[in-house]
Amino acid sequence: MVSQALIKDFEALLGKENVLTSVADLQSYSYDSAVLTPVTPAMVIRPGTTEHLGQCVKKLYDEGIPMTVRGAGTNLSGGTIPDSTDTVVILTNGLNRILEINVNDLYAVVEPGVVTADFAAAVARKNLFYPPDPGSQAVSTIGGNISENAGGLRGLKYGVTKDYLMGIEFFDATGELVKSGSRTVKCVTGYNLPGMMVQAEGTLGVISQAILKLVPPPRASRALVAVFDELQNAAEAVAGIIAAHVVPCTLEFLDNNTIVRVDDFTKAGLPREAAAMLLIEVDGHPAQVEDDAAAVERVLRANKASEVLVPRDAAEKFKLWEARRMALPVLARCRPTTVLEDATVPRSQIPAMMKAINEIARKYRLEMGTFGHAGDGNLHPTFLCDRRDHDEFQRVEEAIDELFDTAIKLQGTLSGEHGIGTAKAKWMEKETSRGTILFSQRLRRALDPKGLLNATKLVGI
Amino acid sequence: MVSQALIKDFEALLGKENVLTSVADLQSYSYDSAVLTPVTPAMVIRPGTTEHLGQCVKKLYDEGIPMTVRGAGTNLSGGTIPDSTDTVVILTNGLNRILEINVNDLYAVVEPGVVTADFAAAVARKNLFYPPDPGSQAVSTIGGNISENAGGLRGLKYGVTKDYLMGIEFFDATGELVKSGSRTVKCVTGYNLPGMMVQAEGTLGVISQAILKLVPPPRASRALVAVFDELQNAAEAVAGIIAAHVVPCTLEFLDNNTIVRVDDFTKAGLPREAAAMLLIEVDGHPAQVEDDAAAVERVLRANKASEVLVPRDAAEKFKLWEARRMALPVLARCRPTTVLEDATVPRSQIPAMMKAINEIARKYRLEMGTFGHAGDGNLHPTFLCDRRDHDEFQRVEEAIDELFDTAIKLQGTLSGEHGIGTAKAKWMEKETSRGTILFSQRLRRALDPKGLLNATKLVGI
Repeated sequence: MVSQALIKDFEALLGKENVLTSVADLQSYSYDSAVLTPVTPAMVIRPGTTEHLGQCVKKLYDEGIPMTVRGAGTNLSGGTIPDSTDTVVILTNGLNRILEINVNDLYAVVEPGVVTADFAAAVARKNLFYPPDPGSQAVSTIGGNISENAGGLRGLKYGVTKDYLMGIEFFDATGELVKSGSRTVKCVTGYNLPGMMVQAEGTLGVISQAILKLVPPPRASRALVAVFDELQNAAEAVAGIIAAHVVPCTLEFLDNNTIVRVDDFTKAGLPREAAAMLLIEVDGHPAQVEDDAAAVERVLRANKASEVLVPRDAAEKFKLWEARRMALPVLARCRPTTVLEDATVPRSQIPAMMKAINEIARKYRLEMGTFGHAGDGNLHPTFLCDRRDHDEFQRVEEAIDELFDTAIKLQGTLSGEHGIGTAKAKWMEKETSRGTILFSQRLRRALDPKGLLNATKLVGI
Repeated sequence: MVSQALIKDFEALLGKENVLTSVADLQSYSYDSAVLTPVTPAMVIRPGTTEHLGQCVKKLYDEGIPMTVRGAGTNLSGGTIPDSTDTVVILTNGLNRILEINVNDLYAVVEPGVVTADFAAAVARKNLFYPPDPGSQAVSTIGGNISENAGGLRGLKYGVTKDYLMGIEFFDATGELVKSGSRTVKCVTGYNLPGMMVQAEGTLGVISQAILKLVPPPRASRALVAVFDELQNAAEAVAGIIAAHVVPCTLEFLDNNTIVRVDDFTKAGLPREAAAMLLIEVDGHPAQVEDDAAAVERVLRANKASEVLVPRDAAEKFKLWEARRMALPVLARCRPTTVLEDATVPRSQIPAMMKAINEIARKYRLEMGTFGHAGDGNLHPTFLCDRRDHDEFQRVEEAIDELFDTAIKLQGTLSGEHGIGTAKAKWMEKETSRGTILFSQRLRRALDPKGLLNATKLVGI
């Protein structure tokens, strides 16, 4: 329980302005971006230094108070919803310093509350490149990206957050500092704790610092847009591009419903009759870009694209890419509730998965919009519904069951990039094994013996 | 204790030929490639199916018998030396099937005993590429590569084993099957257990299957060799190449002693007067190779390379690269004992590290040869000595202490790719923290409550 005395202690440590206890403030931290029931925390604290962060964790552990760490709360699986009304939310946005960008050794050292897009921009100003670009990058934090192993549009060629985490420092549940990884490209000193903390959803420790890999930026890039009259042709083209050994940096998909909804809102002049659109970008050496773009165009035409266009200039490209970025917010405006999934399949299974998604929509009489990172098999089938309509929402839940069953049957996974949180925990055993759940529970219990760190998330405790 | 009854049980399960108990056989599995005291195991077993592997683990766990899993025993930090004379060695070389190479989705599924070079060759026959190439690749196994997070010559551009491990199946200490990761590029379903099993040195579970990422092969490559009269110029050239935003696939270093020793043995006509040589290879699109090779040559000449040569043909390149591959075996012939280190620093610190290595050799009056993966800061300073000479070997140990202190001071790490095992356990806390050791011990104890899996390795149990 958070007592008045404890509140005073935290106020003394962090300053009154960094300890929130009013009902209005607490309600702001009761939910995240997942469609789940809010839980109002007991207190919200905002440490401004890593020393304070460690002291907060230690104090909460000693008092036996549950903690949920929160960056920007853009989580789509409930990972930042407090576990109970006794929970203290630890905000990381006061820990937002970029401590080092090393241009010779191609790494950076950052605090967990640094905003992803701010970091990418700071890196770009030094003529380097930090590729992970989750949809929420304008507000999401690096700490949240690590805890969820955030993906994004560039995952296909450049990988996801885990591929850029070289080293980490974190406080374990008891407040002890743990360090692992290095500023070096190779490091095998002890367990790969950066690898373990990635996608751990805040259950194994509280991140205080990260060392991130940077890469030289590509020298050139080219965008292409393809329009298809048949959905299956678009899906086949995606598989065909990868099979042709072209690895685009972006290979995104929009279905008809998404195209129409986005065009209604943005008036971007999208092809409203199209069954699907692909947005593709290749990058690298100028000559490679030339070759890859030609190869992509061949595959698109071989798969009956009705139109292949190269944006005339940066402005036109921006407009089309913005249409993709607007897909979720625009779909979210259509109906009271938006359930965004991210079941993912091997790329060659995209045609089968697309077919299954449409059959599921028909079978359960649901409106859907599907868009996403087709190139890495990570589609976002999105259910547009109203949670208050019990009959409809039950059909949504049955449809999701069938969607996950299909993904697993196609050798895919429940979640490509949104995480398990509380939203998908019940399906985990189906994809893995009973042994996996028990192993994972043993792991977290050992590292958090009082069960205070985001206890209801992932595999439970 | 391994009783006669237990031996009979294993013989019944695996066949007599797969249960070794003769003194001569047991002694063959008492050591690995590290300079450490051999420990003769109680029994060696060789399961031929993953089902048998699981049954073996379960039976040994139930009986409370320690286990050390062994691929080819090429480990350089003692990871495959049995913990005690009660230990049973589980050989993985009966589990050597490549189960799938998926050319459309760019992954493969393999058993742990597949030999690295055999796997890379099978992948190459399908016109794909598996980059990790540890020095021992001709005999090392994928399971060993995962457990040690093996690096190699291509780490700089292509990363190390951990960057290619998409999914894993393993038996936990009790023999329960655990699965994590996927055939998909993105997967955040549960903890990142592939990331946790990488470099865990056989302490967290027994690997039964791995899903490995493949990439399209580079279309072109070019090799360059540079000769330097001054060591520091070679070191500066290494840092300069990376700073010029060229990421070669290979950037290897040989010092004078290594050059002379290799030339004595191979008669390859190496530049015996040179203070150092760099072997460089750039790869990718033909036009990029052209540009990168030109940029590399500019940096080499700016750093006073006395000679820059492009091998005339594949045979000449092979001869030079073979000189690099022969560095360790040739140095190992010079004196009775070879202690090969792999302290690693950020690339810009290579000049400082080289200087320190030479000072240490002088200070402790030791013969050394230094070669290695300069491009990723991963040098292999190698002590040529005689372990039976107590005075000399004590100087070696003091020199290693100073070497590690230097690497840490330069923001580097104890071990770039050889692992901690028993050889480097005592230095781990210096690089990390007390909290890191305690956290790691809690982790492994929870997953291996009887302390049977390679218990003396890494952080102890």
